[in-house]
Amino acid sequence: MEIAIHFTPEAIVVPPLDLPSREIGAAVEFLGIVRELENGEALGGLHYEAYEPMARKVMARHFEELAGLHPCAAVLFIHRTGWVPVGEASMFLRVLASHRKEALAFMDGAIDRLKQDVPVWKRIR
Amino acid sequence: MEIAIHFTPEAIVVPPLDLPSREIGAAVEFLGIVRELENGEALGGLHYEAYEPMARKVMARHFEELAGLHPCAAVLFIHRTGWVPVGEASMFLRVLASHRKEALAFMDGAIDRLKQDVPVWKRIR
Repeated sequence: MEIAIHFTPEAIVVPPLDLPSREIGAAVEFLGIVRELENGEALGGLHYEAYEPMARKVMARHFEELAGLHPCAAVLFIHRTGWVPVGEASMFLRVLASHRKEALAFMDGAIDRLKQDVPVWKRIR
Repeated sequence: MEIAIHFTPEAIVVPPLDLPSREIGAAVEFLGIVRELENGEALGGLHYEAYEPMARKVMARHFEELAGLHPCAAVLFIHRTGWVPVGEASMFLRVLASHRKEALAFMDGAIDRLKQDVPVWKRIR
């Protein structure tokens, strides 16, 4: 499986879709967007910090494990760091697979795992 | 829930993301792409036909029902008709929701239902 993991302090720009083979039947993309209300409090945005070397390593391991469960051809993960205003994306995930069920299951698992033990933190101020 | 359903004989162009509120936390997108191999046979593409008035009606009903199960803010569905070459998208689905789990469940359900009883057909030649 092709794995790409990026961190950027800039606004996330979704890269053009580039299919690695003629056997890709499903491209699933997720943008995680900062919402205004967090626990009933109106925010202007969130601040994200990542311990990048470790975050890359942990995410890559999760992706490899998930590919064993839900075979997919490629995953692209981009996480923004620093201040992210409400309405802008803090993360982007693209999964390419032959079949849609695998791509959706991979994506769901990847986001669950991101929240578990990957050293990326958010704070309100 | 905002529902938009389009059929087009042209290549699908993914519309810019337009958030209907500051409470959207997840944008999930799916492109269904024509694969080269179908039951072991190498194809150049697939031909899609839709009975559009009925397909719109049935899809809209499915979307309303799914929104009752998995609350989402908006869904945009685009299906291409006519000849779709291998490597190009036959359909696009975008779901916006406050939370990712609802958006993914809505999307999975919507694609299942599309295959059930929506009058859109594909043929090899």
